[in-house]
Amino acid sequence: MNIEMITAATNRLSGNVRRTPLLSSPMLDEIAGRRVLVKPECLQHTGSFKYRGAWSAISALDDQTRARGILAFSSGNHAQGIAAVARAFGVPAVIIMPSDAPKAKIDGTRALGGEVVLYDRGSQSREEIGDQLSAERNLTLIKPFDDPQVIAGQASCGVEIAQQAADMGITQADVMVCCGGGGLTAGIALALEAHAPDMRVRPAEPEGYDDTTRSLAAGERLRNQQEAGGLCDAILTPMPGEITFPILSRLCGPGVVVSEEEALRAMALAFHHLKIVAEPGGAVALAAALFHPGQFETDTVICTVSGGNVDPAIFARALETL
Amino acid sequence: MNIEMITAATNRLSGNVRRTPLLSSPMLDEIAGRRVLVKPECLQHTGSFKYRGAWSAISALDDQTRARGILAFSSGNHAQGIAAVARAFGVPAVIIMPSDAPKAKIDGTRALGGEVVLYDRGSQSREEIGDQLSAERNLTLIKPFDDPQVIAGQASCGVEIAQQAADMGITQADVMVCCGGGGLTAGIALALEAHAPDMRVRPAEPEGYDDTTRSLAAGERLRNQQEAGGLCDAILTPMPGEITFPILSRLCGPGVVVSEEEALRAMALAFHHLKIVAEPGGAVALAAALFHPGQFETDTVICTVSGGNVDPAIFARALETL
Repeated sequence: MNIEMITAATNRLSGNVRRTPLLSSPMLDEIAGRRVLVKPECLQHTGSFKYRGAWSAISALDDQTRARGILAFSSGNHAQGIAAVARAFGVPAVIIMPSDAPKAKIDGTRALGGEVVLYDRGSQSREEIGDQLSAERNLTLIKPFDDPQVIAGQASCGVEIAQQAADMGITQADVMVCCGGGGLTAGIALALEAHAPDMRVRPAEPEGYDDTTRSLAAGERLRNQQEAGGLCDAILTPMPGEITFPILSRLCGPGVVVSEEEALRAMALAFHHLKIVAEPGGAVALAAALFHPGQFETDTVICTVSGGNVDPAIFARALETL
Repeated sequence: MNIEMITAATNRLSGNVRRTPLLSSPMLDEIAGRRVLVKPECLQHTGSFKYRGAWSAISALDDQTRARGILAFSSGNHAQGIAAVARAFGVPAVIIMPSDAPKAKIDGTRALGGEVVLYDRGSQSREEIGDQLSAERNLTLIKPFDDPQVIAGQASCGVEIAQQAADMGITQADVMVCCGGGGLTAGIALALEAHAPDMRVRPAEPEGYDDTTRSLAAGERLRNQQEAGGLCDAILTPMPGEITFPILSRLCGPGVVVSEEEALRAMALAFHHLKIVAEPGGAVALAAALFHPGQFETDTVICTVSGGNVDPAIFARALETL
């Protein structure tokens, strides 16, 4: 991983991924007690930042390899990103998803032309299913975060943040990133190291799934006690990645852990003041900025809203917190 | 009104209003049977396009006049636009609002520093209240649509549409605009006349409040039977404006009328596929594109989502249509 790889990925993505805006509201600033800027990756194609990494990885394959097809494991957002990018390149995509993934994400993946293979988290191994499918059909596996080209694609979000903040005269900030396996967090951290060195990336996680926060504090990769359940499905991973963790460890400040209730309230406030749709896992960074002001010393906090693929019933539940 | 005035307003707005993106989803294209592009003005400051016109009009005043303060009548979106821009210029704003305006809009206007004066639509005349306040405090009235500087500000949205569509190689399209008094519709029509002459603007309205559609068909300004009630409060006006109607009449194609149910379904689909929050009146243009395909002959329909200031209970009702 180096900045040349990120620049190359950003160039491949140009014109193919959306340059999301940087949003703000005086009401959110007031709640947080400082300036809050929001990078709404929910407005990205397929409703999450995952489209960036998928485009980067699939566009980096040679034509013959790509034409044979793509394989991915995902509970949802990576699935939709891969399915949509594979379709844009006219190649098949097989996505192995847990049968308890949010319906909106399973339906969305199928609607984008992805071939969805469901498995039971309790009784089946997705790796075995994947190995078999991959061998039979000669597919190329694209991992959700522990892949340098995926990380380079997510880094394009950080390149945009650096440019957009600089246009506003902002060079110092804490940049809160919703963190699962760490692909977006590591990518943004690498981009900012090169383009906005006075900004510091910090991961945001939900209570009970704070593997990255604990790992950063301990200096080694620690595992979550639980792997599924909870509202923040988009960012629940067993532990930080082998490739992502050394990057996070070198570049990121301490993590901030928020409750599910705070994530729901942040979703409601994003609805009310920014007019965007955040999913629970996509709202933890904003929740950190709004409800944990004591964790910050900077005048400005930039928050990713990493995705918006939420079932209506959960969104309605968030609105009830207003 | 001429294109020089629009160019001057667009230049005054540059860096002060948000350049909203042009969004799309393959799922919306499939429903509509053609390409659908969405201009989400809900992402504009204060959650609606009205901030553009407010900035244009207030920035065009001389310093002394502006310093005395601004007066506006509005059920909500113009109110918030005026309050926020007045605050940005450090001048007072008094907003006369009906007491039955959506709570989110009254609260939003106050939170932005606007002095809200409520009146009862049934028993009080907002004009009398306005005349009295204006005389007492020497305020400058900025009308919501029948003001050349307001129209020139809304036109900046059309300038962006022309540029963004051209970047995608699109020069021909029907451009559906959510239409109340016609300020946004007239502004976009004037901008496209100059910058994208093969695009045609068409107003979208809710059933029962289709004054512009009927007026365009009749060639004269006709009045709505009812002036209040209904979900689409943002775009309910008695009749097309004196200044806006001749522009609409010269430049716009026939209107499209949608039901409230269709507006709610369009809100739900914008939530699901675009991750944006539309209010009912802000969703009528998208509803026209999605549910009235027989009204279009072009390959591409560009829809404004003019605002997103909706009470949570109404949004939850829209989600139930999914």
